[in-house]
Amino acid sequence: MDTGIVTKPHDALANTLSEEMTAVNDLIRRRMASKHAPRIPEVTAHLVEAGGKRLRPMLTLAAARLCGYSGPFHIHLAATVEFIHTATLLHDDVVDESGQRRGRPTANLLWDNKSSVLVGDYLFARSFQLMVETGSLRVLDILANAAATIAEGEVLQLTASQNLATDEAVYLQVVRGKTAALFSAATEVGGVIAGAPQAQVQALFNYGDALGIAFQIADDLLDYTGDASATGKNVGDDFRERKLTLPVIKAVAQATPEELSFWKRTIEDGRQTPGDLETALAIMAKYGTLDATRADALDWAEKARLALAKLPQDPIRDMLEDLTDYVVSRLS
Amino acid sequence: MDTGIVTKPHDALANTLSEEMTAVNDLIRRRMASKHAPRIPEVTAHLVEAGGKRLRPMLTLAAARLCGYSGPFHIHLAATVEFIHTATLLHDDVVDESGQRRGRPTANLLWDNKSSVLVGDYLFARSFQLMVETGSLRVLDILANAAATIAEGEVLQLTASQNLATDEAVYLQVVRGKTAALFSAATEVGGVIAGAPQAQVQALFNYGDALGIAFQIADDLLDYTGDASATGKNVGDDFRERKLTLPVIKAVAQATPEELSFWKRTIEDGRQTPGDLETALAIMAKYGTLDATRADALDWAEKARLALAKLPQDPIRDMLEDLTDYVVSRLS
Repeated sequence: MDTGIVTKPHDALANTLSEEMTAVNDLIRRRMASKHAPRIPEVTAHLVEAGGKRLRPMLTLAAARLCGYSGPFHIHLAATVEFIHTATLLHDDVVDESGQRRGRPTANLLWDNKSSVLVGDYLFARSFQLMVETGSLRVLDILANAAATIAEGEVLQLTASQNLATDEAVYLQVVRGKTAALFSAATEVGGVIAGAPQAQVQALFNYGDALGIAFQIADDLLDYTGDASATGKNVGDDFRERKLTLPVIKAVAQATPEELSFWKRTIEDGRQTPGDLETALAIMAKYGTLDATRADALDWAEKARLALAKLPQDPIRDMLEDLTDYVVSRLS
Repeated sequence: MDTGIVTKPHDALANTLSEEMTAVNDLIRRRMASKHAPRIPEVTAHLVEAGGKRLRPMLTLAAARLCGYSGPFHIHLAATVEFIHTATLLHDDVVDESGQRRGRPTANLLWDNKSSVLVGDYLFARSFQLMVETGSLRVLDILANAAATIAEGEVLQLTASQNLATDEAVYLQVVRGKTAALFSAATEVGGVIAGAPQAQVQALFNYGDALGIAFQIADDLLDYTGDASATGKNVGDDFRERKLTLPVIKAVAQATPEELSFWKRTIEDGRQTPGDLETALAIMAKYGTLDATRADALDWAEKARLALAKLPQDPIRDMLEDLTDYVVSRLS
């Protein structure tokens, strides 16, 4: 797949929604301000201006437009979704003790854990105010449930990710929590605020859910195959941080006793020595788990594409369809 | 003041509301469960069962009953308020790197920072679901604003607490964020869910606000005067953690140049040596700042008492009035 082609869908959406995205960015900037605590915009500007793709707010805007919405509140919901995402990143930074995010040092290295936790809490509260302003209890219900799924998935990951008993079903649950729940809420609330019929709202949920899963599986695969300059992460970070992701889960499922003790030592017990990453890659190559993981990502991208069939035909729908290629394009 | 008398108001409220408090505790236990992440109830049970006074949920129940509420949702709101409180404690534990809470080791020493952050997020999300179930947008608005005030106050504290320029006005703002905002939201939503007239809702807010401020000032004072067995904290913790609280702020405002360098070294620069706590106490004694702080706490308790005048005469109102003594009773 040609990079010139695969970046198009994302850019096309960004161009089509550029006026609304400007309104979202303005709203984000206004609401992240704090009269009393200047530390807040310091910390958040670092993340919000760091050139994220704004994929999630764009999904909300696209869903609302696709369902014919003409009111002002999709802007609030798009900002809500980006605030929740940013808050999650801040809390992840504390959790992971990771040193890099989008190629820059994480907030908790520049400032400290305290700021990351509390400014994340502030952004959650701000997102909560924004959604209340829409006056839609159904939207609030969806986002409250998404928030619970996200937090539960993150906690589940704490225990599941270093446990070799974690299978693909548990992995999927973690992935729904850490990524897909916010994608599906982002698209679903776009339909709900537009007053779309239930079948369309359900289709938007299914699209966001499958797209998010494809996106996260692709991310986990790239951790083993990508290059740091493109992903902003170092190859093998997940292995070094003892995170059991799909490529390893598939290898563990087929492991010889000797391979099983390798995984036990490196992932469960965390006693890693130089050369272990290379051994891990060799075992994964032996069973073709990187290819199998790629196939799973493509399957979910296809599910996302199919979900769109129930939505009105529209240039935006075409762009959302192309986006299903985009999220897995880095795998090609 | 006789201890036998001053504990009465709290017990009287607990007895009067015992049936509803049982319902609140049941709801808390059900909603803190997680099918997928057993780590969650492990961490929260530690806090929720640790024998907290349940002061905040009791305030919500009392406010709703005082305003004649007969529906089911004050139970949800009381559980909401306790979840927010517990989530805040979990995030505070990360932040403070404190080793003790209510006389027990904090969750982040028993588990780790990761669990404290993410389980706190889970409780926030659960509280959010509970309040959405009430179906009251006004309640959601109040709690969203309270959440923002809490987080903003906590972030403000990060920068203000080690800065000698912090005056009593900034201190008050921090205190509203860390304590009074949840007290006032707890009482206000009780009135709102009961459909009370605005004058009563405002009176409930004023009561909770003043009670919370009295409570926090008392807490900050006890840090210098209390005994560890009663407060579950060590005397001088705030000083050692370089937290500028009211007794010190009052001393800084009157400091000689020599005293000012003492405060600068110990609080701003954090270079403390043995005997510094004793010196700090001697300076505070010289200006009578502990007595002045105690007088402030009593003033706020009196403001809380006066706010109740606008509410219906009722045994519960008498108990809320007695509670204004209770929160400062430890100072006598």
